[in-house]
Amino acid sequence: MENQHETTQGAGSADAKADIYDDDGVIRASFLAHIGAAIADRDTITLKREVGGLHQSELGDLLEALIPEQRHALVGLLGKDFDFSALTEVDEAIRLDIVDNLPNDQIAEAVQELDSDDAVYILEDLDQEDQDEILAKLPFTERVRLRRSLDYPEESAGRRMQTEFVAVPPFWTVGQTIDYMREDQDLPDSFTQIFVIDPTFKLLGAVDLDQILRTKRAVKIGDIMHETRHAIPATMDQEEAAREFEQYDLLSAAVVDENERLVGVLTIDDVVDVIQQEAEEDLLRMGGVGDEELSDTVFATSRSRAPWLLVNLATAFVSATVISQFGATIEQMVALAALMPIVASLGGNAGTQTMTVTVRALATKDLDIYNAGRVIRREVMVGFLNGILIAAVIGAIAAAWFQNVDLGYVIAAAMVVNMLAAALAGILIPLLLDRAGADPAIASSVFTTMITDVIGFLAFLSLASWWLHLG
Amino acid sequence: MENQHETTQGAGSADAKADIYDDDGVIRASFLAHIGAAIADRDTITLKREVGGLHQSELGDLLEALIPEQRHALVGLLGKDFDFSALTEVDEAIRLDIVDNLPNDQIAEAVQELDSDDAVYILEDLDQEDQDEILAKLPFTERVRLRRSLDYPEESAGRRMQTEFVAVPPFWTVGQTIDYMREDQDLPDSFTQIFVIDPTFKLLGAVDLDQILRTKRAVKIGDIMHETRHAIPATMDQEEAAREFEQYDLLSAAVVDENERLVGVLTIDDVVDVIQQEAEEDLLRMGGVGDEELSDTVFATSRSRAPWLLVNLATAFVSATVISQFGATIEQMVALAALMPIVASLGGNAGTQTMTVTVRALATKDLDIYNAGRVIRREVMVGFLNGILIAAVIGAIAAAWFQNVDLGYVIAAAMVVNMLAAALAGILIPLLLDRAGADPAIASSVFTTMITDVIGFLAFLSLASWWLHLG
Repeated sequence: MENQHETTQGAGSADAKADIYDDDGVIRASFLAHIGAAIADRDTITLKREVGGLHQSELGDLLEALIPEQRHALVGLLGKDFDFSALTEVDEAIRLDIVDNLPNDQIAEAVQELDSDDAVYILEDLDQEDQDEILAKLPFTERVRLRRSLDYPEESAGRRMQTEFVAVPPFWTVGQTIDYMREDQDLPDSFTQIFVIDPTFKLLGAVDLDQILRTKRAVKIGDIMHETRHAIPATMDQEEAAREFEQYDLLSAAVVDENERLVGVLTIDDVVDVIQQEAEEDLLRMGGVGDEELSDTVFATSRSRAPWLLVNLATAFVSATVISQFGATIEQMVALAALMPIVASLGGNAGTQTMTVTVRALATKDLDIYNAGRVIRREVMVGFLNGILIAAVIGAIAAAWFQNVDLGYVIAAAMVVNMLAAALAGILIPLLLDRAGADPAIASSVFTTMITDVIGFLAFLSLASWWLHLG
Repeated sequence: MENQHETTQGAGSADAKADIYDDDGVIRASFLAHIGAAIADRDTITLKREVGGLHQSELGDLLEALIPEQRHALVGLLGKDFDFSALTEVDEAIRLDIVDNLPNDQIAEAVQELDSDDAVYILEDLDQEDQDEILAKLPFTERVRLRRSLDYPEESAGRRMQTEFVAVPPFWTVGQTIDYMREDQDLPDSFTQIFVIDPTFKLLGAVDLDQILRTKRAVKIGDIMHETRHAIPATMDQEEAAREFEQYDLLSAAVVDENERLVGVLTIDDVVDVIQQEAEEDLLRMGGVGDEELSDTVFATSRSRAPWLLVNLATAFVSATVISQFGATIEQMVALAALMPIVASLGGNAGTQTMTVTVRALATKDLDIYNAGRVIRREVMVGFLNGILIAAVIGAIAAAWFQNVDLGYVIAAAMVVNMLAAALAGILIPLLLDRAGADPAIASSVFTTMITDVIGFLAFLSLASWWLHLG
């Protein structure tokens, strides 16, 4: 794809991306070596030339590709030319590592250059003491702004909002507003709408910039503003806010305090990150891992994954107990020991399929009381159909392998039973967890597999014992 | 969350969301009953009043909550007042069901009211014949526009782009540009930047609207435009385009043809959908399901999931073959049959943890050649640490349960071996698949589980046979 990109773009619009990334979107080894050499030579002129023009996300990728010593050296050598907003683009561990290595004075100075949302993003992970010290070094208004954001709960809209925005009274005309924007030096770096407020900062509405541009100068702002149906309370969880953006295709939204006063603006670029994180969270949770990052230490990773393994150990013992009840049966026909994991494993897979679809549909709110009944019926039917299919295949193979037609019937019947159990477990467990207020992505997996294991072993071994007159 | 939302917003900014959705974000039963009754009474006045003001995504949710007969009746009763853009917000099956029920004349008329990207979204799923018939009924320019989008490959930027945009020559002044926007009636519904082109429509640059608003009237557009580093070739895959948006925090980007002529604009709202779909795709693929939707039929669902189950059946037989080699061992100590699934299951879980992290890191391009070595070492260490932990617990329990200390040693040793195998499989398999150009989300799961099953059974049973002098 990258290839195509470069070709079609041609030489005319030489793209920085083409320079530092290879065709797979990974930073070029040659670029990295070049920067590494310049760092080793303490060649600040080359570094400022090569790194100074990078987009914050490109600089972030570069920082992640460097080894820690190079990273610290690069930040040191760039000095004031280091773009702190790149820190919002790297792993938390790398961000902390860089920030902890810098004097608070330098951080305080850099933070003033940032948009408030980026500043908060960097400050919120620091310990209270450093945070206070840095804030104390800031000018009053800057300090109050950041303090206010930091006082909102973690992962709230108030934490993610930008406190720089344009707000005008409703009685201004379009002409006045444009003139104000032409004069004022203190505008946000970029914005797509302006807000309309009363003298107490209460939010009255918003006007998109394209609306201002297509309206005659004499028209009053109050006449072209639209009501802000989607004002976001600062305490709202960022995921909830992201859903508003998605549902209503918002580019930015006003953030208001408990008195409906405008305190900031939430923009789509921050929301895109939240949407990604949310989808990623579900994926990681279903895989039995928590909020890991690639840069976490061995010990932290081990500790965060161990509880999940211990839970699985407990459920595995439940299955073992079921099997141990059939010791005499297995002793008489040891082929059962070879075949029983197949029944459990296929059930586990079918259950995981249903569960994955269910968890995702619950997360996107596509599954609700209006279609739950229909979806449950569908899953049971699918489980039955695929159960019959798999049962036929496995029955035939088992009968041929062990030269025992009855064994074929037994495993086929057990398979149909377990596929039905898998379908029911795969849909009912996430639904019940969701109804109970738990996150279905976290616990569905372990319960579903436990049920398909237990039913798989139980159905197969008990049918075998009865049908084949064993034990 | 919704609750809080309502409270903080207060009565002043009554939010439509509060009216039709309950606290869980699901359409209120009372609203649904009200609409259902109006449909039954063919009460078009009530329907137009209640449904006419809904946002397209709200109308989409309503359509999904209704039963098919109500859906068709509602679309019929609303007639020209039905907002076709709501069709871009519903499941494909529901969209096709609604569209197939409408005469092509009506679709052709409705499509003209839509933004071109929405029109293409609806038309692209229709069969060729209907598509041609509808296009033939459109005015020339409209037809050419949509045809051009539809001629680009599926899931390309050209399919997702909007062909309505504002483009001006570089020698115009800011004043001229604003005047043009005030006069022109044919502007897109909303836009955040204007493009700068030469007489042949070749893209020269872009200007954000806030830049226009803060610049004096006499300044030339050519002097404030920025180079469009991120022009998207129309043939670029939508996922690749989405990554550009994410990396560079774009709100919209020019789409250019193979001659670098401006043909459309891609906007962030379409990209957000792509980002979501992409994350969702990984999740579904890892769960062994493909591009399913909740509204798919039983048969379609069954058929799409069956291949995956058959592959798993094949790998399960590999494990069964391993076990069957140890028939004599198991006959001598049937406790092995009860314990062996524990070793395999824990290995499978640990492998899935590593694999989930790896697949996700590959998708987000966080894992690359610069950190692969470090991450592999980390995973092996984590596997070893958690292996020791789980081995200690399971060894103690097994020894106590079966009153056999040696059996405890055997299962503990097998567990450490399998956890190390799980860590290696969980990271190397996705990495190798990725290197080979395959999608690691699809096949990693089946290979990882096969390895942890086989190694789990093999290590446990062969150690048991040797250590305990069995078989």
